[in-house]
Amino acid sequence: MTITNEQQIDEILNRGTITEILPTKEDFKKVLLSGKKLRFYIGFDATSPTLHLSHAKNIILMEKFRKLGHEVIILFGDFTARIGDPTGQNSTRKQLSRKEVLNNVKKWKKLIEPLMNFKEKKNPPKIKYNSDWLSKMRTEDWIEIESKITVPRLLERDMFQKRISEGKPLFVHEFLYPLMQGYDSVAMDVDVEVCGTDQIFNALVGRDLMEKIKGKNKFVVAVTLMENPKTGELMSKSKGTGIFLNASPLEMYGQIMAQPDEMIEILFVNNTYLSLEEIKKIVSGNPRDAKAILAREIVKIFYGEKKAEEAENEFNKIYRDRQLPSEIEVFEIEQKKYPVLDLLCDSKLASSKKEAKRLIEGGGVTKKTKDNEEKINNWKQEILLEDNMVIQVGKKKFIKIKIKVK
Amino acid sequence: MTITNEQQIDEILNRGTITEILPTKEDFKKVLLSGKKLRFYIGFDATSPTLHLSHAKNIILMEKFRKLGHEVIILFGDFTARIGDPTGQNSTRKQLSRKEVLNNVKKWKKLIEPLMNFKEKKNPPKIKYNSDWLSKMRTEDWIEIESKITVPRLLERDMFQKRISEGKPLFVHEFLYPLMQGYDSVAMDVDVEVCGTDQIFNALVGRDLMEKIKGKNKFVVAVTLMENPKTGELMSKSKGTGIFLNASPLEMYGQIMAQPDEMIEILFVNNTYLSLEEIKKIVSGNPRDAKAILAREIVKIFYGEKKAEEAENEFNKIYRDRQLPSEIEVFEIEQKKYPVLDLLCDSKLASSKKEAKRLIEGGGVTKKTKDNEEKINNWKQEILLEDNMVIQVGKKKFIKIKIKVK
Repeated sequence: MTITNEQQIDEILNRGTITEILPTKEDFKKVLLSGKKLRFYIGFDATSPTLHLSHAKNIILMEKFRKLGHEVIILFGDFTARIGDPTGQNSTRKQLSRKEVLNNVKKWKKLIEPLMNFKEKKNPPKIKYNSDWLSKMRTEDWIEIESKITVPRLLERDMFQKRISEGKPLFVHEFLYPLMQGYDSVAMDVDVEVCGTDQIFNALVGRDLMEKIKGKNKFVVAVTLMENPKTGELMSKSKGTGIFLNASPLEMYGQIMAQPDEMIEILFVNNTYLSLEEIKKIVSGNPRDAKAILAREIVKIFYGEKKAEEAENEFNKIYRDRQLPSEIEVFEIEQKKYPVLDLLCDSKLASSKKEAKRLIEGGGVTKKTKDNEEKINNWKQEILLEDNMVIQVGKKKFIKIKIKVK
Repeated sequence: MTITNEQQIDEILNRGTITEILPTKEDFKKVLLSGKKLRFYIGFDATSPTLHLSHAKNIILMEKFRKLGHEVIILFGDFTARIGDPTGQNSTRKQLSRKEVLNNVKKWKKLIEPLMNFKEKKNPPKIKYNSDWLSKMRTEDWIEIESKITVPRLLERDMFQKRISEGKPLFVHEFLYPLMQGYDSVAMDVDVEVCGTDQIFNALVGRDLMEKIKGKNKFVVAVTLMENPKTGELMSKSKGTGIFLNASPLEMYGQIMAQPDEMIEILFVNNTYLSLEEIKKIVSGNPRDAKAILAREIVKIFYGEKKAEEAENEFNKIYRDRQLPSEIEVFEIEQKKYPVLDLLCDSKLASSKKEAKRLIEGGGVTKKTKDNEEKINNWKQEILLEDNMVIQVGKKKFIKIKIKVK
């Protein structure tokens, strides 16, 4: 028997992470209240070596269903990843090798461990790989599946239409991606698929297949993609808005602090365990303070209380109090006299002499010893270096000098 | 080395059976003249248990290439037959079982034996089955193939467009048919595909795949479908215009004699070994005589000179001279007196008493003994039967009475 406490169920269904339930939310709630143990799954294509907070939110949601007593499966799309979901892609994805994919999967498993109790004995989450069935299927199996779905049904996808009308190539293997994702549901005989709103089409193809092959009504639970409500953009590494699970505590803390204010509430709702009431109170205050609470809460989930506190102190030291960070990269030298342009380049504080010159002229270079701090204004000078002297460039870049004894 | 006699090659390329060669006829002729041994193939999906003269013409053409010294493969699409080519189909074909298909293939092999020298030791024709590769292929193999062809490329097919625009279902497995036929070329590593003009699309998908996977230029030799030039119709069992290879000599002779006059030249060109000059002479004469020569020529190919002559004599006896055929179905009876309506029904000369009555009233029923022939005019009468009495209905239906001794 599963937990059928209506308040608990409502908290999950209405928190904000879930945006749509198909065929209906009412039907789904009824089944959850019935006490029937359901089999949930969510799939991830391991196309990149890391995960961000939008993935984490999905695992957190799955863990909530697991704690209600339901079976949950984290499906690594190690097979589908090799093709790549064409969703949202303007061009055909590069196909990955099996080795690349398995390498990504390995890293992912580690990253989600803090979010889910993999050690629970009674009802542990399951991990599956879709290569287990997809790679074994033969032409005949595909004909069987393909005879259940029409071409116009697949062409309905606006993204396909868009690519075709723009004259961009859409290859047949991409066209079959929805069928592969759809067949995952059949192979695992699931009751519920949890997926991002961008995956609803694929999940519904799976719903069709479940109905036609197993005569079963599969629920599709669509979850938010946590877009920025102002720009509509998703978390993105290239745009500097990502919060990645492989970041160090300090990096993660910093990535959260770097988020625009409009993301604070979204991140609280989806990536912390605070109640909606508490969240409301926090976000109504000063955004900087709210963000600091958010950052500490999230880092805590992945690294524990102590590391979160350290990350916070460290972050404040560097960015708020402008103090030196506790750990600074060491630059070892043999000679004590160094032309300043060479020093900045050799220690990687500047990428060229031109940049070094510009930094100095802009007043951004400082040399610090235990007792003294001094701006370097003349780019032609040679600096007399000493052990533990720190050279700082801008706000964030530091090196500590270590004199190598010959 | 192959035979590179230009006159012989031109005779094949220009006789009329071949309607189009892709990429160009000139390129193809050049390769044939080069003496390079090419690998030809033609595929047949064994979706029905019999073949007609349009299939026979293709085998005759393949045999001509084989006689030039080229390798020829007759591919039985035992795998693709199970799906059915969607070409020209307004609705999705019923999928055949493997047993049905293999049963058809077995019958087909027998039917084409008179057309091709399967016993030649030096360069015998090869028979292949596409289940040998298609059934073994896995998802991964399909992804590889499908990544070479775009969805719009497949959608170009007017037949697909038509079905979609008419709102008729087009299932994904049908959409993949061209890829399967296309892959046959790759699996057999052919140089030339011979196909009906309705198969050019599929053959060109195969040409694309050959180029992308093997970097090879496959020729597509499209052959006539032998449509009726007046009606545009193909040979059809349901329309009574088919000439089937499983017909008896007499049936085949009759099926040819039943063809409309406009089909005479087409059948001569594609299904006999007479020269174009001889054909021209024959068809310029009386159509009835031309058809008789045609029928005898074709029956001769399948059954030999003697059987062709017998078939001709038999046909003339029944249809031209209105004599009794040599073999008449025997109807055994015990009683000697029989109400005429019952006799016609029980012996299957009529399908109902109503029809029997109509036939008698129309003057179409005759009873014949060795010495006497008499129309039956009164449908209420009882006939006094005797051994070897023949009852004839219309021109073609006969039974011979046999009195069973109790």
